[in-house]
Amino acid sequence: MLYDAIVVGGGVIGSSVSYQLARRQKKVLVIDRGKTGQKASSAAAGMLGAQSELKGDDSLFQMARTSRAMFPSLAVELKELSGIDIGLQQKGLYKIASSKGEAESLQQLGRFQETAGEKAEWMDAGEMRQKEPALSDRFWGALYLPEDGQVDAPQLTKAYAASASALGADFLEHTDVTGFMEENGRVVGVRTGGGTYTGEAVIAAAGAWSASLLNHDRTIVETYPVKGECFSVQTERPLIAGTLFTKGCYIVPKAGNRLVIGATEQAGSFDESVTVEGLFQLMEKARDLLPSLQGAKIEHTWAGIRPQTKSGIPYVGPHPEKKGLWLATGHYRNGILLSAVTGTLVADQIEGKQVDPDWVTSGQSFITL
Amino acid sequence: MLYDAIVVGGGVIGSSVSYQLARRQKKVLVIDRGKTGQKASSAAAGMLGAQSELKGDDSLFQMARTSRAMFPSLAVELKELSGIDIGLQQKGLYKIASSKGEAESLQQLGRFQETAGEKAEWMDAGEMRQKEPALSDRFWGALYLPEDGQVDAPQLTKAYAASASALGADFLEHTDVTGFMEENGRVVGVRTGGGTYTGEAVIAAAGAWSASLLNHDRTIVETYPVKGECFSVQTERPLIAGTLFTKGCYIVPKAGNRLVIGATEQAGSFDESVTVEGLFQLMEKARDLLPSLQGAKIEHTWAGIRPQTKSGIPYVGPHPEKKGLWLATGHYRNGILLSAVTGTLVADQIEGKQVDPDWVTSGQSFITL
Amino acid sequence: MLYDAIVVGGGVIGSSVSYQLARRQKKVLVIDRGKTGQKASSAAAGMLGAQSELKGDDSLFQMARTSRAMFPSLAVELKELSGIDIGLQQKGLYKIASSKGEAESLQQLGRFQETAGEKAEWMDAGEMRQKEPALSDRFWGALYLPEDGQVDAPQLTKAYAASASALGADFLEHTDVTGFMEENGRVVGVRTGGGTYTGEAVIAAAGAWSASLLNHDRTIVETYPVKGECFSVQTERPLIAGTLFTKGCYIVPKAGNRLVIGATEQAGSFDESVTVEGLFQLMEKARDLLPSLQGAKIEHTWAGIRPQTKSGIPYVGPHPEKKGLWLATGHYRNGILLSAVTGTLVADQIEGKQVDPDWVTSGQSFITL
Amino acid sequence: MLYDAIVVGGGVIGSSVSYQLARRQKKVLVIDRGKTGQKASSAAAGMLGAQSELKGDDSLFQMARTSRAMFPSLAVELKELSGIDIGLQQKGLYKIASSKGEAESLQQLGRFQETAGEKAEWMDAGEMRQKEPALSDRFWGALYLPEDGQVDAPQLTKAYAASASALGADFLEHTDVTGFMEENGRVVGVRTGGGTYTGEAVIAAAGAWSASLLNHDRTIVETYPVKGECFSVQTERPLIAGTLFTKGCYIVPKAGNRLVIGATEQAGSFDESVTVEGLFQLMEKARDLLPSLQGAKIEHTWAGIRPQTKSGIPYVGPHPEKKGLWLATGHYRNGILLSAVTGTLVADQIEGKQVDPDWVTSGQSFITL
Repeated sequence: MLYDAIVVGGGVIGSSVSYQLARRQKKVLVIDRGKTGQKASSAAAGMLGAQSELKGDDSLFQMARTSRAMFPSLAVELKELSGIDIGLQQKGLYKIASSKGEAESLQQLGRFQETAGEKAEWMDAGEMRQKEPALSDRFWGALYLPEDGQVDAPQLTKAYAASASALGADFLEHTDVTGFMEENGRVVGVRTGGGTYTGEAVIAAAGAWSASLLNHDRTIVETYPVKGECFSVQTERPLIAGTLFTKGCYIVPKAGNRLVIGATEQAGSFDESVTVEGLFQLMEKARDLLPSLQGAKIEHTWAGIRPQTKSGIPYVGPHPEKKGLWLATGHYRNGILLSAVTGTLVADQIEGKQVDPDWVTSGQSFITL
Repeated sequence: MLYDAIVVGGGVIGSSVSYQLARRQKKVLVIDRGKTGQKASSAAAGMLGAQSELKGDDSLFQMARTSRAMFPSLAVELKELSGIDIGLQQKGLYKIASSKGEAESLQQLGRFQETAGEKAEWMDAGEMRQKEPALSDRFWGALYLPEDGQVDAPQLTKAYAASASALGADFLEHTDVTGFMEENGRVVGVRTGGGTYTGEAVIAAAGAWSASLLNHDRTIVETYPVKGECFSVQTERPLIAGTLFTKGCYIVPKAGNRLVIGATEQAGSFDESVTVEGLFQLMEKARDLLPSLQGAKIEHTWAGIRPQTKSGIPYVGPHPEKKGLWLATGHYRNGILLSAVTGTLVADQIEGKQVDPDWVTSGQSFITL
Repeated sequence: MLYDAIVVGGGVIGSSVSYQLARRQKKVLVIDRGKTGQKASSAAAGMLGAQSELKGDDSLFQMARTSRAMFPSLAVELKELSGIDIGLQQKGLYKIASSKGEAESLQQLGRFQETAGEKAEWMDAGEMRQKEPALSDRFWGALYLPEDGQVDAPQLTKAYAASASALGADFLEHTDVTGFMEENGRVVGVRTGGGTYTGEAVIAAAGAWSASLLNHDRTIVETYPVKGECFSVQTERPLIAGTLFTKGCYIVPKAGNRLVIGATEQAGSFDESVTVEGLFQLMEKARDLLPSLQGAKIEHTWAGIRPQTKSGIPYVGPHPEKKGLWLATGHYRNGILLSAVTGTLVADQIEGKQVDPDWVTSGQSFITL
Repeated sequence: MLYDAIVVGGGVIGSSVSYQLARRQKKVLVIDRGKTGQKASSAAAGMLGAQSELKGDDSLFQMARTSRAMFPSLAVELKELSGIDIGLQQKGLYKIASSKGEAESLQQLGRFQETAGEKAEWMDAGEMRQKEPALSDRFWGALYLPEDGQVDAPQLTKAYAASASALGADFLEHTDVTGFMEENGRVVGVRTGGGTYTGEAVIAAAGAWSASLLNHDRTIVETYPVKGECFSVQTERPLIAGTLFTKGCYIVPKAGNRLVIGATEQAGSFDESVTVEGLFQLMEKARDLLPSLQGAKIEHTWAGIRPQTKSGIPYVGPHPEKKGLWLATGHYRNGILLSAVTGTLVADQIEGKQVDPDWVTSGQSFITL
């Protein structure tokens, strides 16, 4: 069978790409070396932090804003197609200042974002604690970003994949892609442990494993893994309404009195274990933010491996040398947020549509051996 | 602290009762000997089978119809209060006939239900397979009940409990109630391993463990446990849209290409293990219904312990002898369906409101030693 | 069927008692309200700390020494009967001093234990770190107890139970005992949610739930639960050979480069959740002891509920008022260590054999309402 | 760092090879793309079926006999080094005949094995049921192989790995090997997603994933995966003492009244899910063998992916073309049994020792693209 597109990687990016392609009547095959949606995509806390994560007036910020704005209608579409609720919450995010200096730079960030057309409100300690009384009283205030929301990350990936499947996409799990098939300098399919598959377009969306995937053919994409450890707790009562975000720690309130707390940053590790040190430091920061967290019951601990690029900008576009091969990886800790726009951006390019050239970012950081 | 009501049991019944009481500004304490929502409530497949499970023109059928009709607005309320989506689906249920005789009695049942104002449509084998092509061709037809839907049972219980909590109800888990406190012939609270709690009303909602609970005071409520084994699978594509229901086996489609298959019936057992025999028989029946189930991937196996009464009618009303003590148990395999009406019925009675006397069913089957 | 003995509780104490009775050709029934060996018994770290846990020259110390000495032959017997290896390790224990004052009192304890015929060796910081180089250098030294060993606690309970079963004992799980049957002032059996069972002797061995068990009959045994939180890690290399023991924290090395770290103490809680605060404090202490623990990978976190008595001495003997009823509970954090001697002590008494009267400790702390 | 040997794959074969090399003072690095010992090695039932699995008088049979004979001393060594009990049981195996024809060929096999110096005893139905009364009465008899024993497969792999680690071997988990480094036509190391490692010898021991591993360099080793589904149960009493083995189903008794039942055979699948069909067929066969299995409680279901070769003979020896690269894969369902001899055989060859040339089997079935 000749597929219109073969997506390598069934995480949140690969699933979103396959969903957008399937919506356009493309015949899609998704290949995952394990189960779909089991890696970084299900480890994420699910923040839609367009304003909290991204600062400058650059193309990534534009992509992030565009992507965040897609979620309300996506939530409806995906629920319709898959029956899965992605848990979209739009209750805002507090970017908290722990020093006077930090307070000032957050205020400046707020003013910039307002200029850029976004909502951002500085709250001093008193105002902040009026809205979120469980917060510690040792902070200087917070930049409140009412439009940075969140989703349930594992459900989002399941919803993209189940919706793509409902629209006819095939999923092949537990299958290693060991290289690309080429004809006349063009990628025309993939080789796997269990045979070959041919497709008009091949999309590399293997997250932190994209470097290994492309390494097989001696095309080095300079991504590296960044491990992030997290934990979740159950509380008796809701402690917070909005998301709390500070240096090295965020606390995201979920349905049913759960909180997800993340995330450490350890570059270079593919090991999904949680270490004593990682959890200890995370707990220390989280207790500082939210003292009443002490009595909360620990639910799970886990880690995810996020794909980072040297430039800090994800690769979303054609491979710089190999025709027929597309890249959608390197989203670091913004994979959930950027998944929506990445799906449409890749699908648009494959269909030959005009896209914002600033958002196509595959040209840098490749070395062919 | 003097509670308005103490609910013993944090399953779907106890949680619904506590939610309805909390909505009416009552101060409620829920006591569970383990974690809330962990027993039969989370083991259920979540069918809202008002027409499929109940046949006669009796009060139980009236309760069931009333309860089913409450779910659409409940789903909205509970999502609002707790953020939890109860997964309500209203895609109908096929009650399948495996013999000519069964077909005839189902047709008769359908006519009766239409008379009673319900929708029910007989489909012959061809029509049935046109709507659900994955169904085996060896059946005679089915009674299609378009209004019997389903919910996600574990999420429903969580949503009741989290909503009650959001409205101020207290939850005390891991606590054994070892007896009732009485004053002047009236129940005024409970004794536990960790102290006593006083309340204006005490509601026994301990499911299959209600007999043990009441046994402590030598008041024997004649309920007995009926174990039900289940399993769930994941399929690549959706196999069915509606629920399939036949003797000894039902198959309920869930979001994300999951199917829940239940349930065996074994009276007298509190053992939540799944046996080789139970699972084997269930698989045999399910494969007969849906031959393509063969390739499905097994996700989980589990069992729940349902509380049955001698009369087959749940106890929902005042204890026949002890003032201040209310009963809400014995819902057998209709606990999810009847939870909605049971919650309001108990709350109404405690508030002294007029309720349909036919629905108050605590008077029978008690023996005081 | 008339049993020789009915043991209520299938934890390490109940299982040891049933094993000793079954070895003596008694027909035994063990009743557990859940699964056997699932509560405190499987939560324990498995230290055999006769010298580290117990200090004075009292009967409890004598029981503990006797019990510890039974393990080498028990290990062989249980492996023979059940095939289960209880993981007995006799590599000693370091009782670590964090201040000069602590060092002095440990030295004094060592001298006392030597007088009592036990081995105990004071090591200064240098000697200690020569034997255990991974230990932090901030401690004053340690009392080394070469004969305090350890077992794999979950395997020990399984081995007792499987050996009892191999010798003919019956196990009834998932069954609530709701009271005792009495005839002419003598306990002759138990009532359960699923019927009654008669036995010549009934042994209450329900751990922290013993108070609830006896409460049903308004005989208050003054035990209370003490929750202990633990975690385990995996390391790349063995970090320590012996067990480390200090105030509020012990670290027990297990086969396969695992370490079990325990335990917090929280009186009054039956909740088996691990809290943020409990885990945080435990990690803090463990990192102080063993700095290289930082890189270790977290395996599990859990909590167990230990039964404590007011006097601190377990109940092992006849019920003070009810003939036919025996007590074997209140072992607090020495249940694993004392299980061996408790099993023989109860079996001896039921057989009418002479036992050390100082070790029979059921006479105190009962109140009959 | 220059390693003496780099072992790719930390399953039972890779771990045994690394253990034998570490015993010989080699500096070893084991690289696994996930966690060590998590794939087929921990999915195995642990039979040491030298006589039951292998029939002819060929080199594989000789290897198997040699390997089986190594286990008693291995058990002692590994327990000493790692503290881990490998659960060696030598209680024999019944190869059961379900027809007269099968009975005759088993009798013939028995005579052959006796000639070859092995013990093998034909038992008619009566004798067989005298020794194993729980067996169904519908079989013709069994060939009893008293020396075919079993181990606890997951513990065996852990014990090899922990012993190798105790002797200085390094383990690098969660790391993809994406190709081999070559110099002057000789393999001198491996490339991974996270950098390169150099070693004097590289051993490919990646089980069913060996084909993908070698595929990266376009050297096709003709192995393919064979999925095997299993389940385990818990019984109240021991049902059998020896292992039961018949066409398509074996039942292996484990410590603590557990039974492991395996295994389906599905060529070509890397999917570790258990299917409805696989489990159903396995249960059907197991119930036929052991009718009292019906009441057993299901513990787990799982699947492992075993590496099979076209010739049916594992590759244990030098790569046919690439110097410095060794193969140890393709052990199909005899990986546990053959692990012992494979470890020494590879270590001997790397050390340049003389080995039985019949046992070196890497020369066939390779294609270089």
